[in-house]
Amino acid sequence: MPQLNENFLKLEKNYLFINIAKKIAAFKESNPEADIIRMGIGDVTLPIAPVVIDAMKKGCDEMGVKETFKGYEDSGAGYDFLREAVSGYYKSFGADVSPDEIRINDGAKADCGNIVDIFGNDNVILVTDPAYPVYVDSNLMCGRKIIYADSNEENGFAAMPDDSVHADIIYLCSPNNPTGSVYTADQLKVWINYAKKNNAIIIYDSAYEAFITEDGIPRSIYCVEGAKEVAIEMCSLSKTAGFTGMRCGYTVIPNDLIVKASDGSDVSVAQLWGRRQGSKFNGVSYPVQCAAAAVFTEEGLKQIHENIDYYQENARIIADTMTELGVKFTGGVNSPYIWFKCPNDMDSWEFFDLMLNKTAVVGTPGSGFGKNGNGWFRLTAFGDRQRTAEAMERFKELVKSI
Amino acid sequence: MPQLNENFLKLEKNYLFINIAKKIAAFKESNPEADIIRMGIGDVTLPIAPVVIDAMKKGCDEMGVKETFKGYEDSGAGYDFLREAVSGYYKSFGADVSPDEIRINDGAKADCGNIVDIFGNDNVILVTDPAYPVYVDSNLMCGRKIIYADSNEENGFAAMPDDSVHADIIYLCSPNNPTGSVYTADQLKVWINYAKKNNAIIIYDSAYEAFITEDGIPRSIYCVEGAKEVAIEMCSLSKTAGFTGMRCGYTVIPNDLIVKASDGSDVSVAQLWGRRQGSKFNGVSYPVQCAAAAVFTEEGLKQIHENIDYYQENARIIADTMTELGVKFTGGVNSPYIWFKCPNDMDSWEFFDLMLNKTAVVGTPGSGFGKNGNGWFRLTAFGDRQRTAEAMERFKELVKSI
Repeated sequence: MPQLNENFLKLEKNYLFINIAKKIAAFKESNPEADIIRMGIGDVTLPIAPVVIDAMKKGCDEMGVKETFKGYEDSGAGYDFLREAVSGYYKSFGADVSPDEIRINDGAKADCGNIVDIFGNDNVILVTDPAYPVYVDSNLMCGRKIIYADSNEENGFAAMPDDSVHADIIYLCSPNNPTGSVYTADQLKVWINYAKKNNAIIIYDSAYEAFITEDGIPRSIYCVEGAKEVAIEMCSLSKTAGFTGMRCGYTVIPNDLIVKASDGSDVSVAQLWGRRQGSKFNGVSYPVQCAAAAVFTEEGLKQIHENIDYYQENARIIADTMTELGVKFTGGVNSPYIWFKCPNDMDSWEFFDLMLNKTAVVGTPGSGFGKNGNGWFRLTAFGDRQRTAEAMERFKELVKSI
Repeated sequence: MPQLNENFLKLEKNYLFINIAKKIAAFKESNPEADIIRMGIGDVTLPIAPVVIDAMKKGCDEMGVKETFKGYEDSGAGYDFLREAVSGYYKSFGADVSPDEIRINDGAKADCGNIVDIFGNDNVILVTDPAYPVYVDSNLMCGRKIIYADSNEENGFAAMPDDSVHADIIYLCSPNNPTGSVYTADQLKVWINYAKKNNAIIIYDSAYEAFITEDGIPRSIYCVEGAKEVAIEMCSLSKTAGFTGMRCGYTVIPNDLIVKASDGSDVSVAQLWGRRQGSKFNGVSYPVQCAAAAVFTEEGLKQIHENIDYYQENARIIADTMTELGVKFTGGVNSPYIWFKCPNDMDSWEFFDLMLNKTAVVGTPGSGFGKNGNGWFRLTAFGDRQRTAEAMERFKELVKSI
C-alpha cells in the first residue's frame, strides 16, 4: 500500500479560496436572483492591454509557421528577450538584476510553493502573520516547523523581526497580501540585517509592487543594500498586467546567494533551483512570453498603468468609505487591498456570512490568512468602478444597521 | 544557515538534456561551419496546426475584451470545455474517463515530477530501466528508495514485474521513452494485477499514445480492465499536437483510486492531488486551453494527424536504415523513437561524441536513461524529412567506416 504524505491530512481540507467559492455557490443556489459583487479573491477584471494581446497573437502566428515555430526552450528559464525586458524593468526602479538571475515562470504561485523543494525539512520557517496561505501550506506539506512574526494593529500590520528568535527561511510580502501594508527601505534593511545575522534566506514576494505610488517604498527588495546576498524575490504579472488568466511571472535568485552544504562546500541556490526546475518544469508557453515582454515596452507600461490607475481609484473609494464610517483599516494606498477591522468586534467568518447574506458582497475573511487576521477582513479594488461604488453603498447601509 | 535538501547534491549536476545542450554548444564553438542535425531531444519541428492557432488567437482576443476576459480559474483544474474534450478523446479509443477525473496542466513533466509530493518518503519506487529521467530524479530529490525492473534486449525493452519483489509506486511508459517499445493489453493486465497484489499505484505515462498504429496496443492504461482502481495516467499534447513550446497536458486520477491512511481512513488520491495543486498551481493560460481544445475537434485531429504521419514516415526511414545496416533496434513503429545498439559495442557517450564529431548528428546516449541503456542510443523522428534522410546517409557512412 503506498504511504501517503500525511502532512497533507493535517491541512485545511481545501485551499482558502476554494472554500470561499463553495460558499458563494451555495448562496447562489439559495438566492438565484442575488446580484453578487465579488471583492474576495484578488482577481483582476479589466482586459489585457491591446499591445500585449497583439504581441501574443504575433507569437501564435509564429508557432504556426515552420521557420518561426518554437519547441522546447533550451533552458526552460525563459527566452532572453523576456529576461532582458524584466531586467530592464528592475533597472527602471533602481534594482540591479541581471537577466541570468531571472527565471520566467507560469505565475508566482508555483515557484512560491515549489521553492520549498530545495531546502531541508529541519529549517525554521518564519512567516509574518497574517500571510498569503501558500507560504504556510507549502511548508506544512513538508512537515516543517513554522514560527510567526505578528503583524497587528499596533505595528500597522508590518511585522518586524525579533532578534531573540532564530529563523532560517523568512517569507516577506510588500505591499502585503492581505493587509496592504508596505515596508519602507529602512524596515527592509532591518530584515536584511536580521537575515545576515541568522544566515537566513528571505523569500520576498513583490507581486503587488506595481501599486506602489509613495516615495521611499521600494519596488523590489533589491533596491535595498545587501539584499542580493540574502534574498530571493518572486513577482508576477498577474496584478501588474492582469495576467491572472494568462499565467506568467518571474523569480530572481541572485548569483551572490550562496549557502553552505553540510560538508562545508558552497552551493549556489540558483544552481540548485535550476536543477529542480530542469527536472520538473518545461518553461512558459512561447506566445505568453511574447505577451509578457510587450508589458515592459514603453507603450505596454503606459497601457497597463491605465488599468492600475483605475484600480487605485477603486481602492481610494473603498478607503474613503472606511474613513467615513470610522472603520479602522490598512492598505488602499500602494496596494489594491483594503484590510479592515470587522464592525462590532465580529469574527471574520461571521462577518463574511453576514455581508454575503445581507448585501451579496463577497470579501475574504481575515482569519483565512492567519490568527492575527481574526476579526479582520479583506476587500480588493480589482472590480468594476460602478460595482465597487455600489458595493460600498451596500456596505455603508450594512455597517449603519448593525 | 538554511539547511539544503542535500538529496539534490547526489543527483547528476544537470538534467540530461541540459548536458547535451552544453556539448552541442561546445561543438558549435569549435566547428562554427558544421551543419548540425538534431535528433537528440524529443522535440517536434512542424508548426502547430492552423485550426489550433486560430483557436488560440480567438482566445487571445477574448482576453482583450472586458466581457470575455478570463482571470483565475475557479478550480485551476482546467476549463470544462477542455476537460470534456479530453474525456471525449479518451472515449474515442475505448477508455472511460469522466471530465471530473481530468486535470489540465502545463505539460506532463510538471505533474510527473510533482506527483511525488502527495506520497510519503518510505515508499518503494519501481522504475523500468531505461526510463525518462524525471521518474528517477523526482524521487531521488526526496531521498526515496528506487528499485528497477530491467528492460533489455532479451525482453524487447519491455520489462515485466517480478512477483517476488514488492513495490508501492510503479512508473510505466508506453509507447516507451526512450526505447520505443510498447506494452500489449495482456502485458498491461499483468502489471495491473501485480499492482493490485501489492496494493501499489501505477503512474502511467502515455505521452506517445498518438503514435500507436498497431491493433492490440492500448492508447491508455484505462483501455485495460481494472486500471481505474490502481493507475494515474499522465499525457501531454507535446507529441500529440506539437505543443512542446505551447505547454499543455493532462493528468487523470480516477475517482476509484483510494488509498488507506495510517489511521485506516480512506483517502481519495484525486482529492490529495487537488489540495496540492490548489496551493501550488494556478491553472493553464486561457488561450493555451482554447488551443488545446481545438486539437480534439474533428478538423484538429485531422490536421495533427498529418504531422504525426510525417513523423512516422521519418521513423520508418530511420528504422529501415538500421535494418539495412544490420543494427539491432526497437521502436520506429508505434513510436517516434528508434533505440539502437551502438555499433562495435561502443559505450553510449563514446558513440555520442563520435557521431557528433564525425557527422554533426546529435542523438541521445542511452546511458542517460539508466544502466540498461548503456551501449544503446536514441534517435528521434521529429525532424525535417530531408534532414532525417541526410542524417541517415551520414550515419550509414559512419557505421561502415568503423
